[in-house]
Amino acid sequence: MKVFNGSFHPDAQVLKDIGFVFPCRSAMDSSSLKRIAKATTKTLISYVTYQALHVVLDQLKETDPIQRFWLHQFAARESIQDGEIFLKALFRENPELGFRLLTVRSHIANELADFLPEMLRSGLEQANMEQRRQQLERMTQVDPTLSDLPLEQTPDAADATES
Amino acid sequence: MKVFNGSFHPDAQVLKDIGFVFPCRSAMDSSSLKRIAKATTKTLISYVTYQALHVVLDQLKETDPIQRFWLHQFAARESIQDGEIFLKALFRENPELGFRLLTVRSHIANELADFLPEMLRSGLEQANMEQRRQQLERMTQVDPTLSDLPLEQTPDAADATES
Repeated sequence: MKVFNGSFHPDAQVLKDIGFVFPCRSAMDSSSLKRIAKATTKTLISYVTYQALHVVLDQLKETDPIQRFWLHQFAARESIQDGEIFLKALFRENPELGFRLLTVRSHIANELADFLPEMLRSGLEQANMEQRRQQLERMTQVDPTLSDLPLEQTPDAADATES
Repeated sequence: MKVFNGSFHPDAQVLKDIGFVFPCRSAMDSSSLKRIAKATTKTLISYVTYQALHVVLDQLKETDPIQRFWLHQFAARESIQDGEIFLKALFRENPELGFRLLTVRSHIANELADFLPEMLRSGLEQANMEQRRQQLERMTQVDPTLSDLPLEQTPDAADATES
C-alpha cells in the first residue's frame, strides 16, 4: 500500500468561511501564513482520510474479509496522496465503502480537532527543546578546548581585567 | 527538492503531557484514536517544518542568496519526510540555519494552532459534502431508468397500496 504523501492544494473557501485572519506581527507576512494555513488544512484532511482508510480496513478484518481484501488491493493501486482524488476513485468502484470512509474520517476529525492546538504546540516545543539539547551536546563535544580554558583567559574575562 | 511525505512516528510523550484522553463513544476504540492523534501530531510537526524551510528559503532570497543556494542544495539531498531527522542533519552542517528553522517553525505553529480545529472541521465537512454531491450526480446519471419509473411502481408505493 502506498504511504501518505502530504499534498498541497490550498482550499481558499475553508479559510473564507471561517473568516481566517492571521495577525501580522512578524517578519513573515500574513499572506504567507494564510497560504500555509490552507495547505496545512488540506494536508491534515488527506492525512485523516489515510487514517480513516486504515480504521475501515481494521473493521473489515473481522466483519467482511472479502471486502477488506478488495479495499486493500484498491488502496495498493490508487494513491492516497490526495484524499479527495482517492475517494472519487473509490466512489466509482465501491460507493458503499466510499460513504463509509466519509463517515469515519468525519468522526476522526471531530474527535481530534479540539486537541490539535495543544498537541501541536506542546509537541513542537518538545521537539525544539530536544533539537537544542542535542545541538548543545554536539557543540560541547566538538570544541572541548573551550571548556579547558581557564576562566581568566576567556575574551570576556580579559576585557574585564583591562578596564 | 523532495516533497513532504507524511511520516508516522507517534510521540507518546506529547499526549501524556497534555493528559490526552479520547471519549470512547463509537465503534472505534479509544486506543486507535490515541494512536491516530499521536501520528497526526507527528505528521503536523513535520509538515510545519517543511513549511518553515520554505519560509526561510524565501527570506534568504533577498538577504543572503549564497546561503539560500546552499540550503536549497541541502534540502535537495536530505529528505524532509521526517522533520526531526532533517533538522538533525541540518544542525550538523549549518547550526545557524538549524536554529533559524526551529524559530520559524515554532512561530508558524503558534500562529496556526488555534485555527486548526475550525479549519479541519469546516474543511472536512465541505470536502465530504462535495464528495456526496458528486456521488449523487453520478448515481442519477448511471441509473436514468430509476427516475423514469412512475411513482406507483416503486416498491415503497406498492407496499403502501397493498396495506
